[in-house]
Amino acid sequence: MTEERKMEEQLQAVIDVVKPLDEAAMSKARERMDILTKPQESLGRMEDLAVQLSGINGDFFPCNSKKRVVVMAADHGITEEGISAYPSEVTAQMVANFTGGGAAINVLGRQGDVEVEVVDVGVKIDTNLPGVRRVRIKAGTENFRRRPAMSRSEALQAIIAGIECAEQAGEAGIKVLATGEMGIGNTTASSAVMAALTGYETSLVVGRGTGLDDDRLRHKQEVVTGALEMHKPDSADPLGVLSLVGGLEIAALAGLILGAAKLRIPVIIDGFISSTAALSAVKLCSNARYYLVPSHLSAESGHALLMDYLDLKPYINMGMRLGEGTGAVLAMYLLEAAARITLEMATFEDANVSNKEEDSISSDQQGGRP
Amino acid sequence: MTEERKMEEQLQAVIDVVKPLDEAAMSKARERMDILTKPQESLGRMEDLAVQLSGINGDFFPCNSKKRVVVMAADHGITEEGISAYPSEVTAQMVANFTGGGAAINVLGRQGDVEVEVVDVGVKIDTNLPGVRRVRIKAGTENFRRRPAMSRSEALQAIIAGIECAEQAGEAGIKVLATGEMGIGNTTASSAVMAALTGYETSLVVGRGTGLDDDRLRHKQEVVTGALEMHKPDSADPLGVLSLVGGLEIAALAGLILGAAKLRIPVIIDGFISSTAALSAVKLCSNARYYLVPSHLSAESGHALLMDYLDLKPYINMGMRLGEGTGAVLAMYLLEAAARITLEMATFEDANVSNKEEDSISSDQQGGRP
Repeated sequence: MTEERKMEEQLQAVIDVVKPLDEAAMSKARERMDILTKPQESLGRMEDLAVQLSGINGDFFPCNSKKRVVVMAADHGITEEGISAYPSEVTAQMVANFTGGGAAINVLGRQGDVEVEVVDVGVKIDTNLPGVRRVRIKAGTENFRRRPAMSRSEALQAIIAGIECAEQAGEAGIKVLATGEMGIGNTTASSAVMAALTGYETSLVVGRGTGLDDDRLRHKQEVVTGALEMHKPDSADPLGVLSLVGGLEIAALAGLILGAAKLRIPVIIDGFISSTAALSAVKLCSNARYYLVPSHLSAESGHALLMDYLDLKPYINMGMRLGEGTGAVLAMYLLEAAARITLEMATFEDANVSNKEEDSISSDQQGGRP
Repeated sequence: MTEERKMEEQLQAVIDVVKPLDEAAMSKARERMDILTKPQESLGRMEDLAVQLSGINGDFFPCNSKKRVVVMAADHGITEEGISAYPSEVTAQMVANFTGGGAAINVLGRQGDVEVEVVDVGVKIDTNLPGVRRVRIKAGTENFRRRPAMSRSEALQAIIAGIECAEQAGEAGIKVLATGEMGIGNTTASSAVMAALTGYETSLVVGRGTGLDDDRLRHKQEVVTGALEMHKPDSADPLGVLSLVGGLEIAALAGLILGAAKLRIPVIIDGFISSTAALSAVKLCSNARYYLVPSHLSAESGHALLMDYLDLKPYINMGMRLGEGTGAVLAMYLLEAAARITLEMATFEDANVSNKEEDSISSDQQGGRP
């Protein structure tokens, strides 16, 4: 109990230190956007992203920053209820695949020069593989249709493990973080967390996950509805929600996001599970919202609704629903583009380009162009 | 006249040689997608893109291909009607900016290791700058509110210049092309071409371009409506449409697309102006459609409608409306990702991952995983 109290204080200390963005740096970035050689605001939300990044960083965001995606892996007792098209063992198998470099996230990480850190926060089978960071809080959650997924203390441990991952990334010079996850059954836990924290109907937040047919989708909805009726989670208590119906990787990602916000590191949110973690983080600490960068719109049905709820507008729409951080790592390229545009584009003055109808320059002046 | 006849035959020879995609290569790519370590179809439209690329290439598309964006620049006599927020001189100034490396397309090209080729197909002021390819067909189009933008012969010249750009790219080992453009006034010409080729109402296809207020938007609509009433372009004659109300850069990009299709090179389409060129190319040669890869959804109002018309679904939505090929160059990263996923991801068998519930492997077999 004193251990739990200590962890609560540790979490609160992080929450207390997360500040809104630097308004002066944002104004400076916005002013710069307006003097670059392009029609005003013609780069749309890439300009908004550049401004956000400057507000996070306290100055223009640097190019070629070191980037890392943290893939939190854990298992889910709820798979006993037959809510996934894949067996639980696949979580451990995919962790092994990550270490072998053969998964989608490895391929996209190599493409983007993004480090892939794999963290076992509670995979059922202890793979104990080199290259996997082991913070095994328990060997998968309990079946939350029958009992709480985990204790409050375990949920706290997972959040703090996530915060520590962010801190270690900061120490390693990482300037951009992304959320990734692997856990058979985790769309079910995410749906339950989203319903509990937003109050949305189960039918709106439960989707097909890795590929359920209509009958099994209906069953999955019943499982989530039943669990919520049993536990009656309190929407004002995000830690309680995570412990009752959440997942170890979801809690750990919420911690990663809080840690990133504390360190003023932008954190790119992947698909549905990652976004549920982001929702949990924002419910714990509303200022964390400022540090979130959306990536793609997942094909998982609750994701669009969750993005709207968080007031995030995804940049990429490829109908992906793989998780692992794949969408987030693709969006790192867009983040890098926003940073480079800010730093590298010529201004109207530098390039001798007329920036509005009134100051059209004469052919004489044209001749003077370098 | 014999010169025009010769060009018509040259164009027809390209059109005749554009073939549909390689079905066998597409089946092979689709089969591969289904054995990679991910839930079936979970990479969504990235899988469709990988299949399309294989169909274009006749085999899996190679990684790290040489990429080029071709920025066609030209001026528009229609600017006399006061339809743009910027003066015509800006076209030449931006061409100079491209050669200096300070424009958005230069920044994004450097980021993605994409060559930026700038082609003057009819800028009013002859900049004659090193690094600009000069195929000056005329010093900007005529004011098409008063008379045809150009002759059929000039439109043909522009198309053939575009085809030649594709051919030279092919000779230089370019495997991916993208369309870019610069031309003050070219959203007006594009709107007129789109309306003429699709039959859509002017109010649906005319947008704010570089940033018109409501009054000037209304004026722009009147200019386009008046021009279409005067010229009565025949929707079945795309060359006629281009010559009456088009632009030199639009015609040249249509040619680039046809040339790319002939050479079986995928061509990424940028925003509204590029998409109008794609529409023109498809109207000239329906098989060219197979070689088009969408990029982003422009904030220019007619673009969403045009994408629907072409049955293309943009991958990126950042509210950009800059042109130059900026959205297309960003999408090159997604194209590269699709190619890498196809070639580099592990299969279920390679990675010893269970690919469906039925063949869950035992912990014994787990032990045998490499």
